[in-house]
Amino acid sequence: MNYQIPDINLKALFLGSKGENVDLFKEVLLKVVDEHVGWRQNYQPQDLPVITPFDKSSKSFQDTADHVRSVFNVLSSKLRSESLPWHSAGRFWGHMNSETLMPAIIAYTAAMLWNGNNVAYESSPGTSQMEEEVGHEIAKLMSYKAGESWGHICADGSIANLEGLWYARNIKSLPLAIKEVAPEYVEGKSEWELLNMSTEEIMELTEKLADRMDEIKDKSARSGQNLQKLGKWLIPQTKHYSWLKAGDIIGIGLDQVEAIDVDSEYRMDINKLEKRIRELAEQKIPVLGVVGVVGSTEEGQIDHIDKIIELREKLAKEGIYYYVHIDAAYGGYARAIFLDENDEFIEYNKIDEVYKKYNIFTDMKLKDEWLTEDIYNAFKAISKAESVTIDPHKMGYIPYSAGAIAIRDIRMRESISYFATYVFEKGADIPALLGAYILEGSKAGATAAAVWTAHKVLPLNVTGFGKLMGASIEGAYRFYNFLKNKKFNVDGRIIELHPLTKPDFNMVDYVFNEEGNTDLVRMNKLNHDFFDYASYVKGGLYSNEFITSHTDFAIPDYGNSPLEFVKSLGFTDQEWDRAGKVTILRACALSPYAHDAATFEEYAEKIEKAMQEKLEKIYMYEMNE
Amino acid sequence: MNYQIPDINLKALFLGSKGENVDLFKEVLLKVVDEHVGWRQNYQPQDLPVITPFDKSSKSFQDTADHVRSVFNVLSSKLRSESLPWHSAGRFWGHMNSETLMPAIIAYTAAMLWNGNNVAYESSPGTSQMEEEVGHEIAKLMSYKAGESWGHICADGSIANLEGLWYARNIKSLPLAIKEVAPEYVEGKSEWELLNMSTEEIMELTEKLADRMDEIKDKSARSGQNLQKLGKWLIPQTKHYSWLKAGDIIGIGLDQVEAIDVDSEYRMDINKLEKRIRELAEQKIPVLGVVGVVGSTEEGQIDHIDKIIELREKLAKEGIYYYVHIDAAYGGYARAIFLDENDEFIEYNKIDEVYKKYNIFTDMKLKDEWLTEDIYNAFKAISKAESVTIDPHKMGYIPYSAGAIAIRDIRMRESISYFATYVFEKGADIPALLGAYILEGSKAGATAAAVWTAHKVLPLNVTGFGKLMGASIEGAYRFYNFLKNKKFNVDGRIIELHPLTKPDFNMVDYVFNEEGNTDLVRMNKLNHDFFDYASYVKGGLYSNEFITSHTDFAIPDYGNSPLEFVKSLGFTDQEWDRAGKVTILRACALSPYAHDAATFEEYAEKIEKAMQEKLEKIYMYEMNE
Repeated sequence: MNYQIPDINLKALFLGSKGENVDLFKEVLLKVVDEHVGWRQNYQPQDLPVITPFDKSSKSFQDTADHVRSVFNVLSSKLRSESLPWHSAGRFWGHMNSETLMPAIIAYTAAMLWNGNNVAYESSPGTSQMEEEVGHEIAKLMSYKAGESWGHICADGSIANLEGLWYARNIKSLPLAIKEVAPEYVEGKSEWELLNMSTEEIMELTEKLADRMDEIKDKSARSGQNLQKLGKWLIPQTKHYSWLKAGDIIGIGLDQVEAIDVDSEYRMDINKLEKRIRELAEQKIPVLGVVGVVGSTEEGQIDHIDKIIELREKLAKEGIYYYVHIDAAYGGYARAIFLDENDEFIEYNKIDEVYKKYNIFTDMKLKDEWLTEDIYNAFKAISKAESVTIDPHKMGYIPYSAGAIAIRDIRMRESISYFATYVFEKGADIPALLGAYILEGSKAGATAAAVWTAHKVLPLNVTGFGKLMGASIEGAYRFYNFLKNKKFNVDGRIIELHPLTKPDFNMVDYVFNEEGNTDLVRMNKLNHDFFDYASYVKGGLYSNEFITSHTDFAIPDYGNSPLEFVKSLGFTDQEWDRAGKVTILRACALSPYAHDAATFEEYAEKIEKAMQEKLEKIYMYEMNE
Repeated sequence: MNYQIPDINLKALFLGSKGENVDLFKEVLLKVVDEHVGWRQNYQPQDLPVITPFDKSSKSFQDTADHVRSVFNVLSSKLRSESLPWHSAGRFWGHMNSETLMPAIIAYTAAMLWNGNNVAYESSPGTSQMEEEVGHEIAKLMSYKAGESWGHICADGSIANLEGLWYARNIKSLPLAIKEVAPEYVEGKSEWELLNMSTEEIMELTEKLADRMDEIKDKSARSGQNLQKLGKWLIPQTKHYSWLKAGDIIGIGLDQVEAIDVDSEYRMDINKLEKRIRELAEQKIPVLGVVGVVGSTEEGQIDHIDKIIELREKLAKEGIYYYVHIDAAYGGYARAIFLDENDEFIEYNKIDEVYKKYNIFTDMKLKDEWLTEDIYNAFKAISKAESVTIDPHKMGYIPYSAGAIAIRDIRMRESISYFATYVFEKGADIPALLGAYILEGSKAGATAAAVWTAHKVLPLNVTGFGKLMGASIEGAYRFYNFLKNKKFNVDGRIIELHPLTKPDFNMVDYVFNEEGNTDLVRMNKLNHDFFDYASYVKGGLYSNEFITSHTDFAIPDYGNSPLEFVKSLGFTDQEWDRAGKVTILRACALSPYAHDAATFEEYAEKIEKAMQEKLEKIYMYEMNE
């Protein structure tokens, strides 16, 4: 069925900073519970209830029920005393967490009552169909071609990244396997040429060799052979530890995982990427693949995906090819802000028009501040990558755990698939055993229901998720502008706030520094102390009036990419080498409310006051030693 | 806090075949929702609601709310028309699914409102503590020593198995890495000896070399080196496809994964295991590890874990050592039936006494039929294995997705761990970044809350989960006895029911056959047709009066292990070779109600009638060609 999408009011989609929408939440929740119970009652209505009134009035039943109530008193107390108030409309500017979509929470609960396991269609027809639909929606979000692409839900982004690397590894090894099994199909090609065939060429071969694929797969990387021949897996220097784990687990090994420096905007340096690939080529070392990051974990920055793709096109003419995986775990949903009501990528010069039509920003000046052609081009080029990680539990505003992966070419599935005879039914469009096509096995149908519902409520374009993305980016820019040039006076000392970079997306990194301070170690201590007071460490949770998170950019991980920023604060090169790192405060601006000028202003005052109080405590208790 | 565990009445813990406990469900659910909302309201009560009455009465809000309601009408309809009635007290005897624990469903929903991400303590203090507690509970369930062991929740059993293999691979490679980095610690050992060091010996070395472990780990299997040297990963012939995927993903390759034949009880043949290990040793090929299965996916059978361990002890004297991983994804929780109120493994001759005290079986004759010393010894010996997969979403009666892994020696974590500087706080008992110690990254705090709550309601011993395990085994034996010698008359043809084996646990496999039929292909067709009519394929879901699942035991996967059964039905060896497989019907007996004699008898009549009707349809429409 088609839904008429109304003018979406985001405030109707969240429980609310103060639980304002609890009535709507309970209304829909209780309706689905009642509908579920009605369904149970009317399955074979001639069967009588197995739990009788006499059972229910028995002492053991009453005692067991009271035992359950007692356990819930403890659970509720623990949750209320040891959880974070990220639901606040303006006091939580920390970890990547926020309100999640009320419809997703309710849908999860509803589907949990039926407890489908999407590993097998047989045990979850409804939610398996939803997962298939969600997979195609995510593929379409990447502008992958309908009918030729695919996607599915994963436990999380680390698993999706691992699966992306699994695809790359197995696909890259296929030409060597074909050479063993059906050499006539790759006649005349050298090993170097085999290891530099494009994914497209390889997929065409697998189609031609369809009836020999079992034999070929037996000789592919899954056999354990040739892993070291496949070459290097190149990731940005801001390397997320999930990529180290993935390189370890998948067996290519960390010796094959190399980091490419980032620039002072924390985006992969494309010149260095090209230089490294050429150096490797000279040594006849292939590149297994390149990871482009859309929304880096610590900075929210966006790699030049377009340039990674352009470089591939350029090098292809010289016989060099690499797989491209996009780690858009964080930023993937933001592609919705570039798709019009027909899911077409909006032309750059039409963006303002479309955004005005759909009220994507309340203040278009903030949009102008944010959107550069760089960012636009990076998002656009994702459609050329082989695979993409995208986490519904991040910018999809779905509760944990919900990751996902999309692949450009559905034929790629063959390279990693297993078939278990006992659950396969032929000819179905939906895998009878999804577990044979993916890394995981059993998986909650409820997750699919939650994501499916969210995508129905908010389509993956400017009419839906685009609006939520806009709100979050606008909120981030309000916070960013609030930080710029902000000063505090603590007992005569002037403490200044400095944002790290102009955000590519909705994460705002920043530091406090004393005016005139030239001691980087001291600045790091100030920011670490601030984190302590603005987190569970010393600030408490429920009583805390401003919460943030922190990170360290240390030389072993970041090289000199932070140096430009550090110097802009007045520190010397020597000081950077001496300190060896810069401690950064980090705000993921996910609130669906803070884009509103009045709301933000109201909280800006409170944040400023809370920061002042924390700084005063720090200077009283921590910085005087 | 300590809970006084009352005499548990299982009927108070499930929503009920007809939703009988919907009042209790709503009472507890709404209480936690209200408590959550109260918490939101009282976090900084001076902050006003961000969603105002004017917002709520606006047209766009009303339209958006109506849009949400419309989407839920579709969701609810899809769930009700495309889901399985496994909640029925006696009509669902199929896939591994059933009612799940009401407290787990509510706890999941409650915790989802706070949406903790257990990847990092900072963003989920409450649920991270719960996961740590659950991990230790699961380790204790395996009789791993408190303080020395550990465990955590995974997405599912496939991921836990992959993590187990990751542990084995990386640990096994450490002595070779130590030889490179600190040869003095393994002086005089040959490569064969290095590859046959026990996990205990290796862990002691890692402790001695604690400050050089980063360097050593860099040379371990995570580097990508030596993977082929580590030897064979031996699994039972009933090999679950998750082990093929794991061998592929982890990079040792399928060439290193070998299946050991099972006997006619579908348990790994220990003589063949020993023979194969000795053959490999003669060729100087080490054994990376052996997988023992506790609850095979298709038969519910339990490998002789005690004999796998005894064999290891015997071979250790000859310088051969292998890692043991237990795949107890299915059967792991059943260990609770062997632990007394103090979590001690019950002596074999005390079992009846304890079971009577805690009403573990309503009919001790069925317990006698089930429990052999074989099964007892297998469960007991799990404590000697290095790691165990156990799925809360199977016999823990937790909604999907909730897998778990326990490790005997917490020091093993070092072999797979990563540290990301930005989230580590020193000295904490609980990893600041759990994601650095496990395969996955982001993970739902809600899952931990659900499992934690279930373990508080039902402790992992005879006072709690043991009782639920007993109910399920007793239900399985009632079904097993019902099938034995059952005959149907369809138009003068006699159709007999034959169970496959005496169940080791709670799964009952069975076949229909015509009296006097000597055509195995015909019997296979009969059973496949029966499945079609007893499933979504032709039987419908909501209207179906008896639902089961099926599997094929084919020669490429099972060899001749089904031959004894096939011959007992009167088929010849030639017929077995001709058909190449036997199609089996498969019932996971998980219902928490069917152990009760009166309940089972009531449904036995209905099942018999439904079977008769299905057979009549089959003979009318399918078997007459």
